[in-house]
Amino acid sequence: MIIKSALLTDLYELTMMQGYHHEGMHRRAVFDMFFRRQPFGGGFSVFAGLADLLEALETIRFLPEELEYLAGLGLFRPEFLDYLASFRFSGDIWAVPEGTLVFPQEPLVRVHATMLEAQLIESLLLNVLNYQTLVATKTARIYLASRGGSIAEFGLRRAQGPDGAMSASRAAYIGGASATSNTLAGMRFAIPVTGTMAHSWVMAFENEEEAFRRYARLYPEQTVLLIDTYDTLGSGIRSAITVGKELQDQGHPVAVRLDSGDIQYLSKAVRKKLDQAGLGDARIAVSNELNEEIIAQLVAAGSPVDMWGVGTQLVTGGSDSALTGVYKMAAKEGPRGTFVPTMKMSDNPEKSTNPGIKQIYRFYGPDDYPLADLIAEEGEDILPGRGYTFYHPAGDYRKTRLDRYERIEPLLTLHMRQGERLGSSPELAGIRQRTMTNLDCLDETYKRIINPHIYKVSLSEQLRRQKDQFFRDL
Amino acid sequence: MIIKSALLTDLYELTMMQGYHHEGMHRRAVFDMFFRRQPFGGGFSVFAGLADLLEALETIRFLPEELEYLAGLGLFRPEFLDYLASFRFSGDIWAVPEGTLVFPQEPLVRVHATMLEAQLIESLLLNVLNYQTLVATKTARIYLASRGGSIAEFGLRRAQGPDGAMSASRAAYIGGASATSNTLAGMRFAIPVTGTMAHSWVMAFENEEEAFRRYARLYPEQTVLLIDTYDTLGSGIRSAITVGKELQDQGHPVAVRLDSGDIQYLSKAVRKKLDQAGLGDARIAVSNELNEEIIAQLVAAGSPVDMWGVGTQLVTGGSDSALTGVYKMAAKEGPRGTFVPTMKMSDNPEKSTNPGIKQIYRFYGPDDYPLADLIAEEGEDILPGRGYTFYHPAGDYRKTRLDRYERIEPLLTLHMRQGERLGSSPELAGIRQRTMTNLDCLDETYKRIINPHIYKVSLSEQLRRQKDQFFRDL
Repeated sequence: MIIKSALLTDLYELTMMQGYHHEGMHRRAVFDMFFRRQPFGGGFSVFAGLADLLEALETIRFLPEELEYLAGLGLFRPEFLDYLASFRFSGDIWAVPEGTLVFPQEPLVRVHATMLEAQLIESLLLNVLNYQTLVATKTARIYLASRGGSIAEFGLRRAQGPDGAMSASRAAYIGGASATSNTLAGMRFAIPVTGTMAHSWVMAFENEEEAFRRYARLYPEQTVLLIDTYDTLGSGIRSAITVGKELQDQGHPVAVRLDSGDIQYLSKAVRKKLDQAGLGDARIAVSNELNEEIIAQLVAAGSPVDMWGVGTQLVTGGSDSALTGVYKMAAKEGPRGTFVPTMKMSDNPEKSTNPGIKQIYRFYGPDDYPLADLIAEEGEDILPGRGYTFYHPAGDYRKTRLDRYERIEPLLTLHMRQGERLGSSPELAGIRQRTMTNLDCLDETYKRIINPHIYKVSLSEQLRRQKDQFFRDL
Repeated sequence: MIIKSALLTDLYELTMMQGYHHEGMHRRAVFDMFFRRQPFGGGFSVFAGLADLLEALETIRFLPEELEYLAGLGLFRPEFLDYLASFRFSGDIWAVPEGTLVFPQEPLVRVHATMLEAQLIESLLLNVLNYQTLVATKTARIYLASRGGSIAEFGLRRAQGPDGAMSASRAAYIGGASATSNTLAGMRFAIPVTGTMAHSWVMAFENEEEAFRRYARLYPEQTVLLIDTYDTLGSGIRSAITVGKELQDQGHPVAVRLDSGDIQYLSKAVRKKLDQAGLGDARIAVSNELNEEIIAQLVAAGSPVDMWGVGTQLVTGGSDSALTGVYKMAAKEGPRGTFVPTMKMSDNPEKSTNPGIKQIYRFYGPDDYPLADLIAEEGEDILPGRGYTFYHPAGDYRKTRLDRYERIEPLLTLHMRQGERLGSSPELAGIRQRTMTNLDCLDETYKRIINPHIYKVSLSEQLRRQKDQFFRDL
């Protein structure tokens, strides 16, 4: 699905590249991708999209017709277009693995490349990582809200374009969905596919019972009867019970689906009717503009729902429709080949960046419970056994000392060296398992849907001093 | 950009198709695409995405490896897979032209095809039209809020996947953007491309003045200096004035850009400093999480902004991240080849559909001002000169009589016959011009950003009677 064209970039990346080329600035730089606040007011995000990014970086090229188009803009000189004609991404990529729980300010990806290369890939990198991380995070929240329910991603028709749909299916599976309705995504990513029936199926037959029976005969093992086309608690559930008992008599499972009305009221009423009819094993699936807050509320109210079909809110993020990940220069090569930290100030203080080449160190307690993260300079001695001070991310006055922990893990590892991927992409099911394990190990207070506890992320003393020096030099 | 695979569909479309195939139900049906409420609480939407949909419908096929994948799911029989192998879309598509202003309940697209074909394309059709219509509508609101300002779409890095970005650039241009930063979209859709510089460019040089000067030398006609990397009203504007005067002396235009801080305060302060320095012609561009409400407020407060760079909110819709367009069966072929109206009831009353094969008639006053829309049965005599009664869409008690109008225009026209497109796609610039003309002709009260007047859309008496009959038969 990934677009292989290097032209999928903002024009200013190309004009800046030509500038560096023209000035002979082929020095290397280090850029960080990070985000500044958790989406959905949540306590964590689930990192996703890396494999698609690496695939794109390995393969992006400028095609002849694209170079011709650029030449026609009247902005670019022949020698720069020649450079683009032979462009390959040859940088190094450090990143946290997909399925890792991540927090604001942490460098999730570190790009080491010439200024030209690092600049070109900014738009592509942000496009892929921002969206997939948003969707994986939203799905994890929905999964947690369902308290172990089964989540099906039904978002194709509401996703933001065809590829929006494909990326969404992939990221939703990473975040905890069990299946997708998108058949192409099922094939491409080996995600289980699922589906029920539409109202049009029911309307295509003389009556509901006939519509249900015909479907059940064809798909006896996968029948989910949509009961709200005409009258949910009337003809809908009545026909479902008739056909459901036929299925049960033949030893097949049965399920019904609600797609409108008050889910809490209807699911309880339907459960009761199914149980009274001897269909205690029949499962109930629901859909209809669900999100994590609605699901949490329905679960808390004891709604007997077994499967949640989630579309719009899951694949668009709902009211929080973008992860605001950014990509900022952290260091540049100095005259003698050493790297000099750089920093961007800003009139919005929270938009100032953290200078230097950085690593994230995650401190764990017993049973792999993460306790806090320390952002330090790569190469700083972060040694097990020592105590560390963690500052509240929102201010200096509040700090915590961490003396007892089980182990420290550096999260950023090298995924691409000189433009070549190291190792093959992990299986999607394995990435999903990583998310599930990480979520299991995260303290409940960080997983609250609303107003969660804030996980501690701190700069090391050395980085804090470096940043302070920048402000003093201003 | 359009995915040509027929497998980009929800699994249930395929299971239902097999059902119709198995039952020998090759009758034709008519499906409507419509939406139930305006996005963003607005007074209109801008229809977009049709050309991409038609292109996809002409070309979608099941590839051999896709049929193999489907076979492996264990749901599909060989005779149905054979049918899919030779699948071509051979239906008729009626639609309103792109760039038309549209309203809830109106059938924007009418698909006439066999049940199997009509069912397969549901997910694709909704995916393409929902998203592009959302973005075109959002852009039109942003354009109106700017009161004639120039809007640049900067959304690639925040769009929902690579194709989300491509569709967004296309739809934003239709909705009123003047340019895009997405170079690939510029090439594919012939949209003007634009851009400024990133903070990293400024950080790559010893100081801002040098960074600005180097850029200005290379792009003297397109220089927009980003002045907020370190200190907007200090070194930023100072360096911009120095370099701006050099540009001015050489007869070149100059512009500055603000990307953080309080736009109202900073734009006024920057304007003053530019004017005092004799740079009265220098333009000011701004960006930073803008939307139509923020822009309207800044314009009302007299902020001297010439160009607005809008990204995240424009390409994702912001808090309203999906158009909730749906696709519902309106009629099915009866035993004698005539079409019988169908209707879906619902426990949510607003989810009931309008039965029958329908046309939208738009009534115009002087100067092409639209007055109201009437949804009638295709073939009903809607004759100029007669008076019509329009009911308030939210209830029966409030109605208006329309006796005086200049002309009536049916909005749905045939775009595809038996799977073949009629005529070629209009140029994108022409579609954009249609939007602009339509917006010019729409009364101000419908264009208010917040709490707009509700445009009248009514069912014809004949359709109202038909719908009532369905409810009575329940």
